[in-house]
Amino acid sequence: MIPPGQAEPGCSHRHPGAPGLLFLASKPETGTIARDQAGGKRSWRRAGAAPELLPPPGFGVPKRIRGLPEWGGAPSAWHCLLTPTEPQQAMEGEPTLRLRIFNLNCWAIRYLSKRRQQRVRLIGDTLRQEAFDLVLLQEVWSEQDYSELKVKLAGCYPFSHYFRSGVIGSGLCVFSRFPILDMLLYQYSLNGYPYMLQHGDWFCGKSVGLVVMKISGIIFNVYVTHLHAEYCRDKDAYLPHRLVQAWELAQFIRHTSKAADVVLLGGDLNMHPEDVGIRLLRGWTGLQDAFAEAMHFEGCKNGCTLVPDNCFTDKSELLPFPLGIRIDYILYKAISSFTVKCEELKTTTGRAPGVDIPFSDHEAVMATLHIQRQGQPAGATLGTADPALADVVTEARAEVGAGLQAARRQRYSSGRMAVLALLLLLLQAAAALATLAGLGAEQPFPKLSFCLLAFLALGVLVLATGLHLFHTMEVKMLHGTEDQMWMVLRALQERPSEG
Amino acid sequence: MIPPGQAEPGCSHRHPGAPGLLFLASKPETGTIARDQAGGKRSWRRAGAAPELLPPPGFGVPKRIRGLPEWGGAPSAWHCLLTPTEPQQAMEGEPTLRLRIFNLNCWAIRYLSKRRQQRVRLIGDTLRQEAFDLVLLQEVWSEQDYSELKVKLAGCYPFSHYFRSGVIGSGLCVFSRFPILDMLLYQYSLNGYPYMLQHGDWFCGKSVGLVVMKISGIIFNVYVTHLHAEYCRDKDAYLPHRLVQAWELAQFIRHTSKAADVVLLGGDLNMHPEDVGIRLLRGWTGLQDAFAEAMHFEGCKNGCTLVPDNCFTDKSELLPFPLGIRIDYILYKAISSFTVKCEELKTTTGRAPGVDIPFSDHEAVMATLHIQRQGQPAGATLGTADPALADVVTEARAEVGAGLQAARRQRYSSGRMAVLALLLLLLQAAAALATLAGLGAEQPFPKLSFCLLAFLALGVLVLATGLHLFHTMEVKMLHGTEDQMWMVLRALQERPSEG
Repeated sequence: MIPPGQAEPGCSHRHPGAPGLLFLASKPETGTIARDQAGGKRSWRRAGAAPELLPPPGFGVPKRIRGLPEWGGAPSAWHCLLTPTEPQQAMEGEPTLRLRIFNLNCWAIRYLSKRRQQRVRLIGDTLRQEAFDLVLLQEVWSEQDYSELKVKLAGCYPFSHYFRSGVIGSGLCVFSRFPILDMLLYQYSLNGYPYMLQHGDWFCGKSVGLVVMKISGIIFNVYVTHLHAEYCRDKDAYLPHRLVQAWELAQFIRHTSKAADVVLLGGDLNMHPEDVGIRLLRGWTGLQDAFAEAMHFEGCKNGCTLVPDNCFTDKSELLPFPLGIRIDYILYKAISSFTVKCEELKTTTGRAPGVDIPFSDHEAVMATLHIQRQGQPAGATLGTADPALADVVTEARAEVGAGLQAARRQRYSSGRMAVLALLLLLLQAAAALATLAGLGAEQPFPKLSFCLLAFLALGVLVLATGLHLFHTMEVKMLHGTEDQMWMVLRALQERPSEG
Repeated sequence: MIPPGQAEPGCSHRHPGAPGLLFLASKPETGTIARDQAGGKRSWRRAGAAPELLPPPGFGVPKRIRGLPEWGGAPSAWHCLLTPTEPQQAMEGEPTLRLRIFNLNCWAIRYLSKRRQQRVRLIGDTLRQEAFDLVLLQEVWSEQDYSELKVKLAGCYPFSHYFRSGVIGSGLCVFSRFPILDMLLYQYSLNGYPYMLQHGDWFCGKSVGLVVMKISGIIFNVYVTHLHAEYCRDKDAYLPHRLVQAWELAQFIRHTSKAADVVLLGGDLNMHPEDVGIRLLRGWTGLQDAFAEAMHFEGCKNGCTLVPDNCFTDKSELLPFPLGIRIDYILYKAISSFTVKCEELKTTTGRAPGVDIPFSDHEAVMATLHIQRQGQPAGATLGTADPALADVVTEARAEVGAGLQAARRQRYSSGRMAVLALLLLLLQAAAALATLAGLGAEQPFPKLSFCLLAFLALGVLVLATGLHLFHTMEVKMLHGTEDQMWMVLRALQERPSEG
């Protein structure tokens, strides 16, 4: 294992400096933004932010760029932006830690995802060339794909973790230049329905993975997650489950991040930015959206990560959203005496840089964060003091309550079906006994039909009982979440009188 | 809802003082310990501890004892010990918070547990009379039982939470005199086998519940849990699952308790004190065993909580342990600048005080803890520096590894069975098609046998596929835990060289 910060062959650029750390001036850097050679990139600049971003002399120019020929003849905007620069002493105040994060839903389902192996190789090559500090991947369903990535990235990212859960797996993994000190996996209590085989989310063991890292004395809690997909926005049967997941995610982050200095969350949240689940998550944890906060953005318009330009996306699903939708996020917050600023956010734009195919059906999200120590603690955790939070929790609770009603109805229906199947079986048993006892023997006994009916009833009984048990569990979890939200609401309502 | 610290009818003794808090002298109190009227109680005194325990004047005598007649004519040892006393200023140094905790596996399974309703009423009556500060219950499987307890205890314990999970529920609940600020449930990833219907653990959604409380400015993280039962000690098929649970419990506590001042864990851990799971849990979290640390103990010998004297225990199971076994625990530790001492630990002794039947098939565990602020932080979290910890993790990892091998074998067997069933079905389909095509029509086609065989094959296919999926998930979780333990071992081994 090669310690971070040490030059190593096969890895295009290494960050020099003892703990593999970048110290920059307090003012964030930028370079001249050119259009990517892959084309199709929409670029825009956040109003009011640009004038402050003056490139300090010597910034943004990589010392050595190996592997560039694979991308094209000259360093593109991509390269300027993604290339780490030399550590420098702070120009004012405390030194700044610059962290480059890559997040991607890889869509690597064995036998199902198109050109999976080629894409995974491409992802590996890019990650090795770009040498991010932290890579958060979702939908790496095959452990073999992870192992191959691990071998390929061992030089640049000596530390990694694959989160195992569920039948298929969580699909979540993390690659890091910095040591992973600890980890924990939390599997969401609800994740769709086992009988929705065509969607398959239930089998995936959707979870949130946490890895703890200490970079230059700063404790990072890094979360990676993937929530239940949305298959029909107009009539989203999975909304209550996704809201339970968003709630559990928020609660898990709140409870596990109390000793962290900085919290990072990357993942495919399967929610649009204005959806109640995102507002709940952000409101209840105080996490900030890197896209909304970025001083400079480059990529798909509105930060979309599921776009019609991507050849793997289902165009019919995106018909109501001609620009695409934004469902992949990098969120962050500083908890103790630190501030985090998003210097830059980028997305891929329908294809991987320099090649003809995309990494995945999702676009990659890349953030450059600046983390700086403050003179005094930043104060209480954000989010919980937001006066609008009570409204968001109320809204989410109403959706969970609607899901609870539906789950109760389904529990009742499946229970009734099981009872009917049992009654049919008992009736058949009585008829069979009567025949054996010689009653009604004047007519021939229809053995075949009888057997078929009995097996049918037995099958229905088993299935309906299984469903009943499943919906019983669903009711419990929805009810539990509704209860927790109610307690939070009560606390939020009591707070003003206390203060 | 009645705020704590306020006198309320129906509750035998209330702690006066604003936050419902007991401030005692630094030296812990004690009273004269008499034999309980219910008889059969074994009492012993920890060597060396007794001389220090001098009862300060006026201590240990309750101001008003309602409900006593139900127990007997005069205050017994039980009453003296369990009765809260008046808050007092510290005699030396910082004031001490005295906290009385009740833990019990209630064995309240609807339709199955003997005299359940009577026992739940008895538990409720006792809790109301005794007015503990904190009550941690397990195996309250029926939500109706919880609701009845909640109504009955609303005066003494205005704050409570029932943790819902799994098909049947987690069975966990908490009653508290102090506000519950927040909560989180973590469901263990492995919990036995769905086809072991006679054991039924799988359906219970075994979990660890966390409630956060702030008592007089001290943040308490209180955990309540119930691990998988041990049905056969000599050949314990569930040991790997219980070890995964113990590991997840330890990890969950470590990650969620970093901002807490004091950690408390109560529950039925289904492990003997010397078992590898307990050593792993204690070593990796730094939790201390209230029984081992108690300055004064009274109850079943060796602190046993499953004893032959209890009329509900299975005597044949306890044959190798004539004194009984200790599987219910109260564990604690101080994380920040606090110290926790166990002044006293008690267990019931085969029956509830003053009546003829026990609370449950388990004995209740009652601890009186003294929590005191220290001048300086207590330093790093205990446990992780223990040189023996690596051995414990190695031992646990070997057991998990053995479980992983077994799970892989079962996954293979069930997969093979599914393939065979599928082949049989295909063969039958070929035969049916051949018959329909007129081949071999000279012999009559055995329709009934054919149908029965097809249904049998289908049933086996469905079951074997389900089993294969389950064991695939089991393999993933065992493998994940083995991996995590390996990372911890590596960190433990690297630490000495760092230091």
